[in-house]
Amino acid sequence: MTTREDCLARDALDPLAALRLQFDLPAGVIYLDGNSLGARPTSALARAQQVIAREWGQDLIRSWNSAGWFDLPKRLGNRLAPLIGAADGEVVVTDTTSVNLFKALAAALHMQANTPASAARRVIVTERSNFPTDIYMAEGLSSWLARGYSVKLVDSVDELPAAIGADTAVVMLTHVNYRSGYQHDMAATSALAHTAGALIVWDLAHSAGAVPVDLNRDGADLAVGCTYKYLNGGPGSPAFIWVPLRHQASFQQPLSGWWGHAAPFAMAPAFAPTEGIGRALCGTQPIVSLAMVESGLEVFEQTSMAAIRAKSLALTDLFIELVEQRCANHPLGLVTPREHARRGSQVSFTHPHGYAVMAALIARGVIGDYREPAIMRFGFTPLYTSYADVWDAVEILRQILDDAAYDIAAKRDAVT
Amino acid sequence: MTTREDCLARDALDPLAALRLQFDLPAGVIYLDGNSLGARPTSALARAQQVIAREWGQDLIRSWNSAGWFDLPKRLGNRLAPLIGAADGEVVVTDTTSVNLFKALAAALHMQANTPASAARRVIVTERSNFPTDIYMAEGLSSWLARGYSVKLVDSVDELPAAIGADTAVVMLTHVNYRSGYQHDMAATSALAHTAGALIVWDLAHSAGAVPVDLNRDGADLAVGCTYKYLNGGPGSPAFIWVPLRHQASFQQPLSGWWGHAAPFAMAPAFAPTEGIGRALCGTQPIVSLAMVESGLEVFEQTSMAAIRAKSLALTDLFIELVEQRCANHPLGLVTPREHARRGSQVSFTHPHGYAVMAALIARGVIGDYREPAIMRFGFTPLYTSYADVWDAVEILRQILDDAAYDIAAKRDAVT
Repeated sequence: MTTREDCLARDALDPLAALRLQFDLPAGVIYLDGNSLGARPTSALARAQQVIAREWGQDLIRSWNSAGWFDLPKRLGNRLAPLIGAADGEVVVTDTTSVNLFKALAAALHMQANTPASAARRVIVTERSNFPTDIYMAEGLSSWLARGYSVKLVDSVDELPAAIGADTAVVMLTHVNYRSGYQHDMAATSALAHTAGALIVWDLAHSAGAVPVDLNRDGADLAVGCTYKYLNGGPGSPAFIWVPLRHQASFQQPLSGWWGHAAPFAMAPAFAPTEGIGRALCGTQPIVSLAMVESGLEVFEQTSMAAIRAKSLALTDLFIELVEQRCANHPLGLVTPREHARRGSQVSFTHPHGYAVMAALIARGVIGDYREPAIMRFGFTPLYTSYADVWDAVEILRQILDDAAYDIAAKRDAVT
Repeated sequence: MTTREDCLARDALDPLAALRLQFDLPAGVIYLDGNSLGARPTSALARAQQVIAREWGQDLIRSWNSAGWFDLPKRLGNRLAPLIGAADGEVVVTDTTSVNLFKALAAALHMQANTPASAARRVIVTERSNFPTDIYMAEGLSSWLARGYSVKLVDSVDELPAAIGADTAVVMLTHVNYRSGYQHDMAATSALAHTAGALIVWDLAHSAGAVPVDLNRDGADLAVGCTYKYLNGGPGSPAFIWVPLRHQASFQQPLSGWWGHAAPFAMAPAFAPTEGIGRALCGTQPIVSLAMVESGLEVFEQTSMAAIRAKSLALTDLFIELVEQRCANHPLGLVTPREHARRGSQVSFTHPHGYAVMAALIARGVIGDYREPAIMRFGFTPLYTSYADVWDAVEILRQILDDAAYDIAAKRDAVT
């Protein structure tokens, strides 16, 4: 049986342990919700102060050039690129994941509309268990285009091969499922889509900074993702969109704002998309929230996704092991795959009173979250989570369950 | 002839003079570019620090509820509403002006598609001189819908009556022109659109906080606008969208993200728009940039748009008077209307070497900006601009022109 001492010993040997010092974490809290909102890099406050007091307050409008505000979406995209197997000039940090997904889906449909078999390809295939906003954006786009586009939902991964066929324009999948923590095989599923003549758009919301991703190697066509979860960019920090070099010339999307124009300050009345990744931009970005994304990325540059992944699997393995040992007499159901290759950086357990148990955990300083139906989510961020944290979290869970110390009438607050 | 002493005397009597103390302005600068990026309210730094250090750093995911992050777009919308003649529950602060315009145009086209005469209404009418991103977004939307929609550009306000007709679905105008400072008659133009059976969408980018606006009184159908110009929300701070109560039930737009869902945390796979203004929301917002919008709005609550407008007209009248007196022997051409009702809160002059003259002004601490072709823009923000500032700016302009102290080969940087 693993003991707390064993966990402390592992922490003492953990090559990532020192990175925790670069985060501002509240005392008395074990934070297992970095999959929803990443913790604050200590440097983010100073970065924001610099932007607000110096760049905005003192340099004012000049900062668009002198402080590099104009280039920030591309510069941050280039810093993020190595984490997801993207090349320089393939990523911009901008807008929201939902809006970027709209751009990516629209562009993918447009690419398909220009291929010989286009007339027959009018279906976007995705999973019913996908994060809802992804499905909503696909519905919004397809219904507004009104050319017979539709969204097909599959109920399990096993149904994908049969669902993807000659009528499929785009396969849209979230790489790591927000609720179950299931991780798709990106290479195999991309190949499946391509064999059927479809394009594939990946949502990396729960992947970027959480698991190794190699978009170019694994044949992805387009991708979007989030910077406020595992990348620790701050609450609601702008999202990203990836357009590989090979698709950039044919990438066209309807949110054709001036930031995507070839010469935005020529003030020409006709839209002409710029070359390269810039055509995925639309309007003026929220600079303070955008700038703090850099503070999160700087931490990743001190380690590697391989090291992060090794610790992530160790943490999630340990959590599963300890919960199953120490809470064995309670009705907990593991939702997350045991198989490493199919697991993200979270562990989800069902419990009949999942919401109430999670509320009790949060009240005792173990912060995870809850997702319908009956699922308690625990996210493990190797940059700031220790093995002892895992032990302590499970111990508190055990106490709550053994004592039935939760209120099944607990009021339900929404948490993102 | 007005003297500097006259200007100082007017400052001494100015009821808004004290509000300047609520802004952090750099020493040695006369800032006449608040129409591009508003100056920093002093309180914005503390507000950001609170959000970053306390709400994000210490309270983490709990702040979505405990710090009111979820409600921020609506709460800020309600605080902004009185400045534009909107009611409670009609405005949200979210996304970019470009993205909000896409939503508004799409919703307006959808409303028209459900009216009896819909088949014939496929044209969006706007001005060639409109801010380009507005035209680009209209082009993007209309070309993607591919049902025969198109954008018709008029070359002057006088052409609007003839251009708006039985084929017009939507008239889309920017209330105050970014380049000339021309202000449309919102009531008359809205009536013109309605008489022709069209809807009218107003862009308030250069109006909100700059001139009195009364959207409900003046018959607007939908509106969008910017918070980082006259509202002083910070660089790229999120924009706003106004949907009047009478149109909310029929307001549908394709960027149907989870923040616009009736029950976002039910995680249902089908989109169902929420009641009310929330259906104009899409994805998760950049909270730090969003929160600082409140610091700008708080300043407005200490005065009135009537008082701001009175001083704005006095400042722009004074600037025109002094430039025409003191720089009379130079080839300056007034672009902005002299008529008060047709003027925004800026003054634009052409000069054959406008870019070089503006560069020389900026080098001497008078910050305006330049717009093609040959236009020098000077924005006047009554909250932090004094009459003596106007005198001093004109004096420096006079010196530069008299001495020909500008470099006509000056390198051109882009400024937004």
